[in-house]
Amino acid sequence: MAARRSRITPERQAELHEAVLDLLRDVGYEALTMDAVAARTKSSKATLYRQWGSKPELVAKALRCTQPVSLREIDTGTLRGDFARMVEHSDDAQMAKDTALMRGLAHAVHESPELHKALRDLLVDPEINGLQTMLRRAVDRGEIRPDCPALDFVPHMLIGAFIALPLIEDRPVDRAFLGDFVDAVVFPALGV
Amino acid sequence: MAARRSRITPERQAELHEAVLDLLRDVGYEALTMDAVAARTKSSKATLYRQWGSKPELVAKALRCTQPVSLREIDTGTLRGDFARMVEHSDDAQMAKDTALMRGLAHAVHESPELHKALRDLLVDPEINGLQTMLRRAVDRGEIRPDCPALDFVPHMLIGAFIALPLIEDRPVDRAFLGDFVDAVVFPALGV
Repeated sequence: MAARRSRITPERQAELHEAVLDLLRDVGYEALTMDAVAARTKSSKATLYRQWGSKPELVAKALRCTQPVSLREIDTGTLRGDFARMVEHSDDAQMAKDTALMRGLAHAVHESPELHKALRDLLVDPEINGLQTMLRRAVDRGEIRPDCPALDFVPHMLIGAFIALPLIEDRPVDRAFLGDFVDAVVFPALGV
Repeated sequence: MAARRSRITPERQAELHEAVLDLLRDVGYEALTMDAVAARTKSSKATLYRQWGSKPELVAKALRCTQPVSLREIDTGTLRGDFARMVEHSDDAQMAKDTALMRGLAHAVHESPELHKALRDLLVDPEINGLQTMLRRAVDRGEIRPDCPALDFVPHMLIGAFIALPLIEDRPVDRAFLGDFVDAVVFPALGV
């Protein structure tokens, strides 16, 4: 059965997201236009706006689709299992590409409140919520004490690891670093 | 006794650094020129180059002078005391200004390897060395186990806290946050 003309196939959607990320890497956020996305993907601007809303939303959704797995989908039954799954699903090459992309976006986020909001609503907040659900389950199972003060800082620890390593050692985060950081910092801080 | 003409007084140096930071906030790193610094501070470009070397070094040294205290100067006799001194010396208003400045520099660092090197040599590496000396003393005193795996990640934790809070909660780090983070994350990870 053919898809209705107003719908877009998942393959076509992935193709469009990839084109947006290519453009982002090539020209940066400021210079990226809906016209350029339309030209590169041979689609109409009307389709782009109907399907994704604004440019900040299009960029945030394209970035979201590079994530190998959302934290909200992970539930192995133990906190150690959940974090191991998170590390396992991380892709070294993808994280290196993401580091470069996010560095390019840091400036744009500061200049554009709309981009800041779209990244927060579509990328950051959902993952922080997923992380908090994961931690709440661990508290309910008795793996973490409910009054453990580090519970409030797990997003800061993880985001910090991703940002600090390129700054300090000039290399992107890889799976080995992430695993070591979780074992050395996150679990001891949580008393696990 | 009058200073020799080739020397510069500490007051004049502080004035120049303040002017550089003002210009940085006003126009950003890319648009900041030695001509503009010379004009604003009524000094000759020859003096600027002789005293500070290049533009990246001038910017890095100006940023360094905003730090209330260097970690290398802290040695209270206990690790808890050292961290308490570090938090105590932090200035909320200054950290808010620094957060804005560093965000503006993130893009420039990516574009200019010379700026990246100057910030690393003059700001980041000396503080990381100071931190490592502080931790080594704590190990020697028996406060931290020598094989504690979190020892390698203390810079990542601290830099992470500074960068992640503005991203997650949209506010700069303040002394209260820093103190809570050290108590909730850094000390438990170090087993202190």
